[in-house]
Amino acid sequence: MQPPISSIMASHEIELLAQSLARLPGLGPRSARRAVLHLLKRRETALIPLLRALESVTENLATCDSCGNVDTTNPCGICDDPRRDVRMLCVVEDVSDLWALERSRLFPGKFHVLGGRLSALEGIRPEDLNIPRLFSRIADGGIDEIVLAMNATLEGQTTAHYIAERLESTPIRITQLAHGLPVGGELDYLDDGTLAQALRARRPMS
Amino acid sequence: MQPPISSIMASHEIELLAQSLARLPGLGPRSARRAVLHLLKRRETALIPLLRALESVTENLATCDSCGNVDTTNPCGICDDPRRDVRMLCVVEDVSDLWALERSRLFPGKFHVLGGRLSALEGIRPEDLNIPRLFSRIADGGIDEIVLAMNATLEGQTTAHYIAERLESTPIRITQLAHGLPVGGELDYLDDGTLAQALRARRPMS
Repeated sequence: MQPPISSIMASHEIELLAQSLARLPGLGPRSARRAVLHLLKRRETALIPLLRALESVTENLATCDSCGNVDTTNPCGICDDPRRDVRMLCVVEDVSDLWALERSRLFPGKFHVLGGRLSALEGIRPEDLNIPRLFSRIADGGIDEIVLAMNATLEGQTTAHYIAERLESTPIRITQLAHGLPVGGELDYLDDGTLAQALRARRPMS
Repeated sequence: MQPPISSIMASHEIELLAQSLARLPGLGPRSARRAVLHLLKRRETALIPLLRALESVTENLATCDSCGNVDTTNPCGICDDPRRDVRMLCVVEDVSDLWALERSRLFPGKFHVLGGRLSALEGIRPEDLNIPRLFSRIADGGIDEIVLAMNATLEGQTTAHYIAERLESTPIRITQLAHGLPVGGELDYLDDGTLAQALRARRPMS
C-alpha cells in the first residue's frame, strides 16, 4: 500500500505538479512521482520542452468552427488541407475517434465531430451536439458521401440512425462502418451481438 | 502495430506536446495521445492547472546547497524543517531514494543526496558526486549517526564502504539499512545473494 501522494515531503509546487500529472489517464500517483522526478532532473531537456509545448497548445487551442475538431488553428488542419476530398464527409462522435481514423490514414475526406452521442437517458438532444452545424454543412452542398463512423454502441447507432433518417430525402450516399469480426477475432471469444452482426452481414466468398 | 505518433493529423503544437509527454516514464505514444486528448478537452480543469504547476516548478526549481535534494526552495523543505533531528543524517544515492524513505515517514533526521554512486567502470569518483560536501557537513559537527541507505547493488555498497572507511576515525555511529528477506519474501523465490545476506545477518529469536 502506497500512502497518498500528498505524503511526499516535497514542496507544495512539486506536489501540485505530481497531482496534476496523476490525473492524466494512464498515470497514477506512483508513475506521476516517477514522471516528476524525471522532469526535475532534466530541467533543460524535459521540463522546459514540456512547459513550452503546453504553453503553445494552451495559447492556441481552438475548436474548429467548421467541423468541431480540436486543434491549434481554426479552421483546423484537416479542414484547411486542400488535398482532402471535400466530397466525402466522415461523421464521428469524438475527437479521439477522428484521431483513431487519421492514424489509419485510410479516409481521404473531411470530418465532422459531433462532440458526443444522442442519449435519451442523459437527455442529450441533437441540438446539444454539433448536429445542426452538420446539416448546415451538408446544405452548403458539394458532399457526395457521408460515412457515419459512430461507435458500435446502442447510443452510437441511435445517433447514426437519426442522422441517416434526416438525410433520407437527399441524393447523398449514406454509409456506415462495417460491423463484424475484428481482425484476429475468434468466434469462441466474441459476444453474441458481434456474432449476430457478422452473420447478418455475411457476404459471398470472393 | 501503432504507427509512430507523428502520423496523427494534429497540429505541430499538439504533436510536440504528445511527444513531450510520451518521453515521460510510464507513458508511451498511445497513452500520451490519450493524455493530450484529456488535456485538450479540459482546458480549464486539466490543461491550465498542469501548465501552472509546471511553470511554478520550473521557475523555482533548485538543488539544495546543503543536502543536494531537488526542491523549489533552497535550502530544501527538509533542511529547513526545524522539527527534524539534526543529529541523524541519512545518505542516499538519489532524490528518488529520499522520496521513497520520506513516504515511509520513518526517518526523523535529515538527508544527504549523493547524486549517484561510485563506479570504476563509468569513471565516477567521489569528487564527481556530492561526497566532498557530505564530509564538510559532517566536519561542521552536531551529527551523532549516519545511516548509509545505499542501494543493495555492488556499486551502492562500494559507495557505502568508501564513506564508512573515510569516517572510521570519527566518533560518529555509522549504520546501514539491514539486508535480508523482504516482507512476504519466500525463500524458494529469493536469489542466492539475498539468502546469503539473510543467513549471515541472522539474529536470535526474541
